[in-house]
Amino acid sequence: QGSDLIHLEREKSKIQVAELSAFLFTQKALDRKQEILEILKSEKVFDKSNNYFDGRRDRFVTALARAKRLRQLEVKHKWSTEDLIVATDLISEPGPYGLHASMFLTTLRTQTTPEQQKLFLEPAENYKYIGCYAQTELGHGSNVRGLETTATWNPEDKTFILHSPHLTASKWWIGSLGRTANYAVVMAQLVINGRPYGPHPFIAQVRDLKTHEPLEGIHVGDIGPKFGYNTMDNGFLLFNQYKIPHVNMLAKFSRVDPETNKYVKPQSAALVYGTMTWVRATIVLQAGGVLAKGVTIATRYASVRRQFQDRDATPADGPGENQVLNYTMVQFRLLPLLAATFALHFTGKSMMDMYLDNQKKMQEITSESSRRAPGPEEVQGGSDQLADLHATSCGLKALASTTAGEGLEVCRRAMGGHGYSSFSGVGSYYADYLPTLTWEGDNFMLTQQVARYLLKSARAVLKGKAPNNDTTKIFTTFLERQDMGAAYDILGSDSDLVAAFAWRASFLTFEALKRRDVEKNSWNSLLVDFWRLSTAHSQYLVVKNFYDALQSESLQYELDATTIGVLHKLFRLHALNTLEKEASEFYSSAAVTVRQIQLARTNAVMKLLEEVRPHALRLVDAWHFSDWQLDSSMGRKDGKVYEDMFNRASEMNPLNGLTVDPYPDHDVLVTRDESSKYKSKL
Amino acid sequence: QGSDLIHLEREKSKIQVAELSAFLFTQKALDRKQEILEILKSEKVFDKSNNYFDGRRDRFVTALARAKRLRQLEVKHKWSTEDLIVATDLISEPGPYGLHASMFLTTLRTQTTPEQQKLFLEPAENYKYIGCYAQTELGHGSNVRGLETTATWNPEDKTFILHSPHLTASKWWIGSLGRTANYAVVMAQLVINGRPYGPHPFIAQVRDLKTHEPLEGIHVGDIGPKFGYNTMDNGFLLFNQYKIPHVNMLAKFSRVDPETNKYVKPQSAALVYGTMTWVRATIVLQAGGVLAKGVTIATRYASVRRQFQDRDATPADGPGENQVLNYTMVQFRLLPLLAATFALHFTGKSMMDMYLDNQKKMQEITSESSRRAPGPEEVQGGSDQLADLHATSCGLKALASTTAGEGLEVCRRAMGGHGYSSFSGVGSYYADYLPTLTWEGDNFMLTQQVARYLLKSARAVLKGKAPNNDTTKIFTTFLERQDMGAAYDILGSDSDLVAAFAWRASFLTFEALKRRDVEKNSWNSLLVDFWRLSTAHSQYLVVKNFYDALQSESLQYELDATTIGVLHKLFRLHALNTLEKEASEFYSSAAVTVRQIQLARTNAVMKLLEEVRPHALRLVDAWHFSDWQLDSSMGRKDGKVYEDMFNRASEMNPLNGLTVDPYPDHDVLVTRDESSKYKSKL
Ligand SMILES: Cc1cc2nc3c(=O)[nH]c(=O)nc-3n(C[C@H](O)[C@H](O)[C@H](O)COP(=O)(O)OP(=O)(O)OC[C@H]3O[C@@H](n4cnc5c(N)ncnc54)[C@H](O)[C@@H]3O)c2cc1C
Ligand SMILES: Cc1cc2nc3c(=O)[nH]c(=O)nc-3n(C[C@H](O)[C@H](O)[C@H](O)COP(=O)(O)OP(=O)(O)OC[C@H]3O[C@@H](n4cnc5c(N)ncnc54)[C@H](O)[C@@H]3O)c2cc1C
Repeated sequence: QGSDLIHLEREKSKIQVAELSAFLFTQKALDRKQEILEILKSEKVFDKSNNYFDGRRDRFVTALARAKRLRQLEVKHKWSTEDLIVATDLISEPGPYGLHASMFLTTLRTQTTPEQQKLFLEPAENYKYIGCYAQTELGHGSNVRGLETTATWNPEDKTFILHSPHLTASKWWIGSLGRTANYAVVMAQLVINGRPYGPHPFIAQVRDLKTHEPLEGIHVGDIGPKFGYNTMDNGFLLFNQYKIPHVNMLAKFSRVDPETNKYVKPQSAALVYGTMTWVRATIVLQAGGVLAKGVTIATRYASVRRQFQDRDATPADGPGENQVLNYTMVQFRLLPLLAATFALHFTGKSMMDMYLDNQKKMQEITSESSRRAPGPEEVQGGSDQLADLHATSCGLKALASTTAGEGLEVCRRAMGGHGYSSFSGVGSYYADYLPTLTWEGDNFMLTQQVARYLLKSARAVLKGKAPNNDTTKIFTTFLERQDMGAAYDILGSDSDLVAAFAWRASFLTFEALKRRDVEKNSWNSLLVDFWRLSTAHSQYLVVKNFYDALQSESLQYELDATTIGVLHKLFRLHALNTLEKEASEFYSSAAVTVRQIQLARTNAVMKLLEEVRPHALRLVDAWHFSDWQLDSSMGRKDGKVYEDMFNRASEMNPLNGLTVDPYPDHDVLVTRDESSKYKSKL
Repeated sequence: QGSDLIHLEREKSKIQVAELSAFLFTQKALDRKQEILEILKSEKVFDKSNNYFDGRRDRFVTALARAKRLRQLEVKHKWSTEDLIVATDLISEPGPYGLHASMFLTTLRTQTTPEQQKLFLEPAENYKYIGCYAQTELGHGSNVRGLETTATWNPEDKTFILHSPHLTASKWWIGSLGRTANYAVVMAQLVINGRPYGPHPFIAQVRDLKTHEPLEGIHVGDIGPKFGYNTMDNGFLLFNQYKIPHVNMLAKFSRVDPETNKYVKPQSAALVYGTMTWVRATIVLQAGGVLAKGVTIATRYASVRRQFQDRDATPADGPGENQVLNYTMVQFRLLPLLAATFALHFTGKSMMDMYLDNQKKMQEITSESSRRAPGPEEVQGGSDQLADLHATSCGLKALASTTAGEGLEVCRRAMGGHGYSSFSGVGSYYADYLPTLTWEGDNFMLTQQVARYLLKSARAVLKGKAPNNDTTKIFTTFLERQDMGAAYDILGSDSDLVAAFAWRASFLTFEALKRRDVEKNSWNSLLVDFWRLSTAHSQYLVVKNFYDALQSESLQYELDATTIGVLHKLFRLHALNTLEKEASEFYSSAAVTVRQIQLARTNAVMKLLEEVRPHALRLVDAWHFSDWQLDSSMGRKDGKVYEDMFNRASEMNPLNGLTVDPYPDHDVLVTRDESSKYKSKL
């Protein structure tokens, strides 16, 4: 029945799924993914059937087994970094080597001298040293400068002494540190001769390479269970006057001269800066795919789930119940998110292109050895492509991860009661994804950086000293026309729709500028305005990127007219739905009229939902997730939702191995316990 | 340090916490809560220290032990139903007797004949029969009429045969059924002589009273892990031609005459209907308290957490970092939710009063034996207080539970990284609360019922045949003044603020009416409008209830001027913040001008945040949660957040009993396992 329904549903649309997938991801990448999938599926350790049942201990131990095997496969098949990312995404759970493979190796690659590369990077790349990135402390996260761990230079024996002066100095949240790592990159306050020089990176061994027990002077452990991410051992770390040699300060950018005992300032912070931007760009790149998992699952389920006859149904409609995807209230929740997956996908690609393009240019600048101070906040705005990149990556990271995270929960809830079952899969995607809204810059904090940049750009434009980039262009247009008003034809013209987003962001920028520069309001009193501004600007970027992607030549070349037509509808659905949600900013700025917003709400959006609806299933199919990856009863490609739920519940659920004594006056609780029968044996 | 900060913070306000608590809950209830708390704390089985660490099996078994002990205490101390609810709330986890104590007993009390009371209710009240309420099936939840389980009358031996014709007919989600219950109230399609009569309640034994093994013809078990609620054994149940005697059909309202084999129609559905309304009213009543847990935890943490110096800080501010509660971006997220807890509290009380008032009147109507058909949808609208109660309970249930559920997640996120730790407590409150948005009427579905009622009322008003109630009054006012416009002084007058909410709800009602009755749009095409309408009307009710509560005499009498002043600010914060978020509906309806909304946004709300901020901590203290109940490191009343987190992580976390071999080329995973040392022994 489910399979019939989903088959009929697929028949409703002529979208060419394979072509669309290839357009989105390239055929080469899809083929590679398939190869890797086959390898993983053939390995017993990656079997997912116990994931939803295991407790934390077992999940962690299994995740360690998987991490080991994954590393073996990487070596065996000579996987590239890209391949490893694909494999990790297919496995879909964080693992104990997570921070080793990302931040630990990256930091060692980018912040070490050649001598240090030999000493630390080589054994790290061979997994003799297994590491983590220990920045955050119990007392400090966003405010990195406030870190309390000290690294005091000891001129006598040319060592640093790592120390945690208070409990709040304990490193905390450090991925892979809890049980797995034997090494850590540690951010600590450099102190020379009693004077502090701010946080710098050091490398420290934390566990014995043989016994794996903590070394003397080190108190290390796992920080305990979390809302999600429980296959990862986030850890804490306290140092008690712990000595490390001079060579353990990562010295590519700044260092202590062991002869003079003097601090040597960094020549350029460009590359450090680059890593942070790269991480954020990656989050933007992945956000569409994260959300698409939830949308795929919910859309497939809504095609199979039937509930009630339509109230206005005629006898001709037959006696069957309505697919819940036919209810406009369900469409209104799911289809704009479907549109958002595409919007985020194209935005992510463009963000990554922008990053790579900038990296190239940076190489040149770096070789000119610019004299910037470290840290993103000091970068001079306005004339600087780097500042633009930085602000874009901050704003889009915040918007994209919030959209994906909150969207997953909307998908889960749209499935009604069954969405609450672990077997839907969406609950754990959501729980595991949520940290992305907080790390690499808390999403609310990041909006301050975006606002700072936009204000600087606006000041530059007003002074006539602005560089020529998209931001200053939209500001200039706004200033030229602000007295005339905008009069955009948002319902008739796609480019006008983009322009309306640009207008609103510009309007909010100059409003905020007035409050700060003219009315001299405190920074703190404007944080909510800044957050609105950053969101508005980032929404503009997403709408613009989606629009630009639809103008690309390859689109015309690779896709047929039907598919292109539907993509255009998705664009309009995304843009108009966003506009409608933020309506009051659009009309306050006079970007559009009240009448236009009413029309967008009651006519345009509802009509687009109706037009997109028949294509929904094929559109999610184009995201190309395998059942193995999704591991979801509701998201099964063949629509066999109920069979799968029932099978998992009645055949695989260890709780059913337990017979209890239910009577309150009996002390006995369990009368028969065969729950361990259900456990997988590794 | 944390304790100093929180002490200083409490000094900032002169709100009289004890008086405010007593005003909210009555001193008697507070004292009773304290007594019960002491009893629970003295019992080892209720010790919470392993809750965040245990896996599903252990959590369930512990929950069963707790349920048993709770029942023993109930008997021993002769607890009332109210006392039991208080105890359950203090324990703060769903338990395996949950559905027995609520829906099973309630159904047996309200839907049985005296004979059946003796047969079923008595042993159920003595916990010889432990039961559940089995309505939902794998294939049907919202659409109760679509249930597939059949109960076929067999005239030969005067029995019913319960049967599940398809897999989708399997009962699903049934709380307490998975492992615990031996009896079930089963909703099944009554079939007599081949003719279906719709769903009716039956009672069926499902497990042996001695062995507790499933009876022949019964396939029963736990449905597996969920996003939350894992201390509860939600179950499935399939019948294979399972016979039950005639007396097992709950026969207070309708029955089968065993002599004539004829169906006897219900005389009145009033009381059945009453139970559903009561359950929804209870959800409304509890929503404020649920949200208040999260707000308490986040507000306390934000008073202790310090991060960054203020950007505009002067040397006079000293070198310390800023409490994050000082950041307007944090205030903007937390303080409107704090205001919402009070708004929901007063709304819940008024909803319950309305219900009780109606119950009294119902007794009379029932004795007049009205001739209504069963089910809430058939109740005639307009002239009927019952219909008003029904619609109010639907709309408020949806709004209140959505506000509480989503608000909890906002609180969790406002705590940054540490909010993600299980030790914050908010994650599990959120996960356990989410089903409330889905059960007792999915929150989106309920909005259709509200809209239906409002449309009927509007039609009655237009025809001049409306009864005199608040809804018809606001509609009448709107119709009289709609051409003049509203011109409400929302910033200057509290009653105008309430009136603006009434105006917007009325406007949306007549808009929707036009679309349905004049433009003849399909019901389905209007679902999104209906949802907006229901939300608008329910927001009006909340604002109005808050306003009314502040006019009450007892307020003047029981509270001092400072506290009353702050409560008025909370009212305005709640109302203006809601208005600002829904701005576009307010100006489209001409309830307010664009200029007023801009002022509300940039001035009024920000100013209220500033004014409420010093009182935030005392306001949450007034909610009167004990540390034992909250079980949260971040929510500790004494501010010792970091000590508590560290202690739980390093001393109580079983994962730290595990030493692993971290190297990818070693097969061994665990080299030392002392994790079981950390387990509590029951
Ligand atoms: C699962 C997980 C894994 C992690 N892994 C690692 C890791 O491997 N290594 C590592 O070093 N770290 C790691 N982290 C830590 C992470 O980077 C921090 O949690 C993050 O930087 C946020 O900092 P915080 O938690 O201290 O939040 P805080 O800075 O304390 O923020 C608390 C609240 O205050 C607000 N706030 C703070 N300052 C301001 C301000 N100036 N203006 C306005 N609002 C403000 C924030 O918006 C937030 O709402 C991890 C965290 C998680 C949850
Ligand atoms: C933790 C938990 C405990 C529970 N305990 C019990 C219990 O003890 N006993 C029991 O009997 N049940 C129980 N339930 C079941 C619960 O009552 C149902 O899940 C609930 O009624 C919703 O029904 P559904 O899941 O079938 O959703 P569906 O009706 O399938 O809804 C799916 C989606 O379709 C939408 N939709 C459906 N119909 C329409 C329509 N006509 N118009 C617009 N949109 C529509 C919904 O809004 C939703 O988004 C429990 C559920 C949970 C999660």
